[in-house]
Amino acid sequence: MFSFSVSTAKKEELIDITPKIEKIISDSRVNNGICVIFIPHTTCGITINENADPSVINDIIKGLMIIPETGFKHAEGNSPAHIKTTLTGSSINLIIEEGKPLLGTWQGIYLAEYDGPRKRQVWVKTIGSQP
Amino acid sequence: MFSFSVSTAKKEELIDITPKIEKIISDSRVNNGICVIFIPHTTCGITINENADPSVINDIIKGLMIIPETGFKHAEGNSPAHIKTTLTGSSINLIIEEGKPLLGTWQGIYLAEYDGPRKRQVWVKTIGSQP
Amino acid sequence: MFSFSVSTAKKEELIDITPKIEKIISDSRVNNGICVIFIPHTTCGITINENADPSVINDIIKGLMIIPETGFKHAEGNSPAHIKTTLTGSSINLIIEEGKPLLGTWQGIYLAEYDGPRKRQVWVKTIGSQP
Repeated sequence: MFSFSVSTAKKEELIDITPKIEKIISDSRVNNGICVIFIPHTTCGITINENADPSVINDIIKGLMIIPETGFKHAEGNSPAHIKTTLTGSSINLIIEEGKPLLGTWQGIYLAEYDGPRKRQVWVKTIGSQP
Repeated sequence: MFSFSVSTAKKEELIDITPKIEKIISDSRVNNGICVIFIPHTTCGITINENADPSVINDIIKGLMIIPETGFKHAEGNSPAHIKTTLTGSSINLIIEEGKPLLGTWQGIYLAEYDGPRKRQVWVKTIGSQP
Repeated sequence: MFSFSVSTAKKEELIDITPKIEKIISDSRVNNGICVIFIPHTTCGITINENADPSVINDIIKGLMIIPETGFKHAEGNSPAHIKTTLTGSSINLIIEEGKPLLGTWQGIYLAEYDGPRKRQVWVKTIGSQP
């Protein structure tokens, strides 16, 4: 298992971790297979979305504001971040070919911070297969 | 890696791709293992839901209209489709046994188009294991 | 493939299945690899969230009430449960090391019931890898 940390700067933001994932997959020497990316936190998730216009990732943060800020019981006050994490998800899969993750032209991999700024961990596991 | 294309006909719709996934898994000759399905787009996702009453998939499209149509910055104007893609997800996993994907009685696998009509790609990777 | 059943008691609730998943992974004798957890239903999903303060999982149920209760066509009347299942997801991945699923300090694995009470099934598949 590989891991790395990401320092987030805002309460809510999407941070592009694609280059770090590509490096890990290259280092893993798995040429052909799959990759599981897992976030070991409960107020930040992982998603894939557009890497071209930076407005998109800000619009995603804005769109998730349909979750009310208040009206919850959890004493820490960050229930909206927990809810957004469940909606976003804690793990994704990638397909690996020729030592690289297969992504669509406009796709980037994003850590979705909903309760920052914090230092977050990202865990990555590669599994090889026959070509 | 296997892939196929799906031509969508509406702006928003869920399209049943279960038979195509079953055919690919059969062709892969993986008898026992898992399958990753990955959508290489940022305005369409993948989900599993009911395959019996077609009202259900229309109700899912309707339910996601809680995301506002306007008020975003992305110049292409399709931010709601990007947001719905993050909420739906870009990859799913299936378990394979005896050369078939294991699905519940009422489950079908759906490409979730949020910015059609377009021609979409679906990528599928099977990984074998000991029984 | 391993499976177990969970009896839910309420219409909507999150039920901690972490101990059962840990037991299955231990029984599978996969020391190093990944695990796919799959829910074969269309009105209940699977998610990872906080296992410390029980208010959090109740707040998640409450947060998902942004999906309207009425206004849908599906005759069974449980369209909100179908929509919440698509938002939550039907499968997750875990990384396995030393025969245990790797989870963050505050993470638990939850079956997310949206149309109970019912008896639900959980399917688990482990895949080994080189350490």
